[in-house]
Amino acid sequence: MPLWTVYHPVDVWSDADKAALAEKITDLYAAVMPRFYVGIVFHAIPARNLYVGGVKNDRYVRFVLEHIARSFANIEQSHHFIDKINEVLAPFVSDRGYDWEIHVDETPFDYWSINGHYPPKFGTEDEKAWRAGNRPFARTHN
Amino acid sequence: MPLWTVYHPVDVWSDADKAALAEKITDLYAAVMPRFYVGIVFHAIPARNLYVGGVKNDRYVRFVLEHIARSFANIEQSHHFIDKINEVLAPFVSDRGYDWEIHVDETPFDYWSINGHYPPKFGTEDEKAWRAGNRPFARTHN
Amino acid sequence: MPLWTVYHPVDVWSDADKAALAEKITDLYAAVMPRFYVGIVFHAIPARNLYVGGVKNDRYVRFVLEHIARSFANIEQSHHFIDKINEVLAPFVSDRGYDWEIHVDETPFDYWSINGHYPPKFGTEDEKAWRAGNRPFARTHN
Repeated sequence: MPLWTVYHPVDVWSDADKAALAEKITDLYAAVMPRFYVGIVFHAIPARNLYVGGVKNDRYVRFVLEHIARSFANIEQSHHFIDKINEVLAPFVSDRGYDWEIHVDETPFDYWSINGHYPPKFGTEDEKAWRAGNRPFARTHN
Repeated sequence: MPLWTVYHPVDVWSDADKAALAEKITDLYAAVMPRFYVGIVFHAIPARNLYVGGVKNDRYVRFVLEHIARSFANIEQSHHFIDKINEVLAPFVSDRGYDWEIHVDETPFDYWSINGHYPPKFGTEDEKAWRAGNRPFARTHN
Repeated sequence: MPLWTVYHPVDVWSDADKAALAEKITDLYAAVMPRFYVGIVFHAIPARNLYVGGVKNDRYVRFVLEHIARSFANIEQSHHFIDKINEVLAPFVSDRGYDWEIHVDETPFDYWSINGHYPPKFGTEDEKAWRAGNRPFARTHN
């Protein structure tokens, strides 16, 4: 958690851009969870394979976010976080003349496993250890 | 919304076929929402990377639909719409000897953003403006 | 159902490995459902397109599982099944020095269609026929 799947035009970003974007996205989440929870997959999609409104599009970036470790408590919280995401994204999309769309799905915390471990609950000692070590450990508590 | 992710054999469709399919899919949704809401990503998957029932398959198309802007009210409505989708797809799949599978997930309306805007609710003046202009605008109402 | 989307480093598996893994995954599900329900899409992702914790990663496999035909009844059942998945995966990931992460989402049974048919409910005569024939048929019951 989260898993970001990013469908983007072939030429929108250099590898350095992707690295910079990945770091900024990760920073957003790392304020409240282990850094290694953040996974990002970039898919370059040629215009002939990306349609928006029924027409080919090479000026559009689509961000699909699956959130697992945390759920938004209410719409104020979700808007606050999504607004921050949009601030991070702006230099990579709108400032370069690209349209972009985001949506978030939330999936069950209990149906999630890393290296064979079930991640610890928010705020537990185990989670603190995972965050400090920036990797999963065998759990010492339930 | 919706986002269609389409995993298909390498040779099933020409670029013209994809354009025709994308237009027909978009027409289905455009009856009730702005046309530009419809995003479609085509992924050509070679048989060595697509397994169905544990065996390689190059005669199978998998449609993954994420619905955000609208929720089905009941099973009659969902079947009605999915039946219409299947009618649209038939010439592109079964009529060419391909198997196909569809599933729809619904994700939260509130966790969705286009060009930094939260899309307007169904039937509002803002949504009418987005639909008429076929693009997002800054919202004038809540 | 299920649909597995697997994001993996370019060199982690041979085609024979993928075939072996697909068969073992399918065996797990085939204990309780038609074999052809199991779809698996492999995506080789070069390190420059896969970030974990904000850094490029070529030692990480991400499994995204969408479950449609069956829902977990409780956390014991989900852990039991995910543990079995992790046992199946271990020789393909950790034993080769790769990290791996799994998450499962559940999507609505009613919003699912194969070759234009709505799959039969669990335990019905129609489902037995689909399972025995390992393919979808026109339904004879509701």
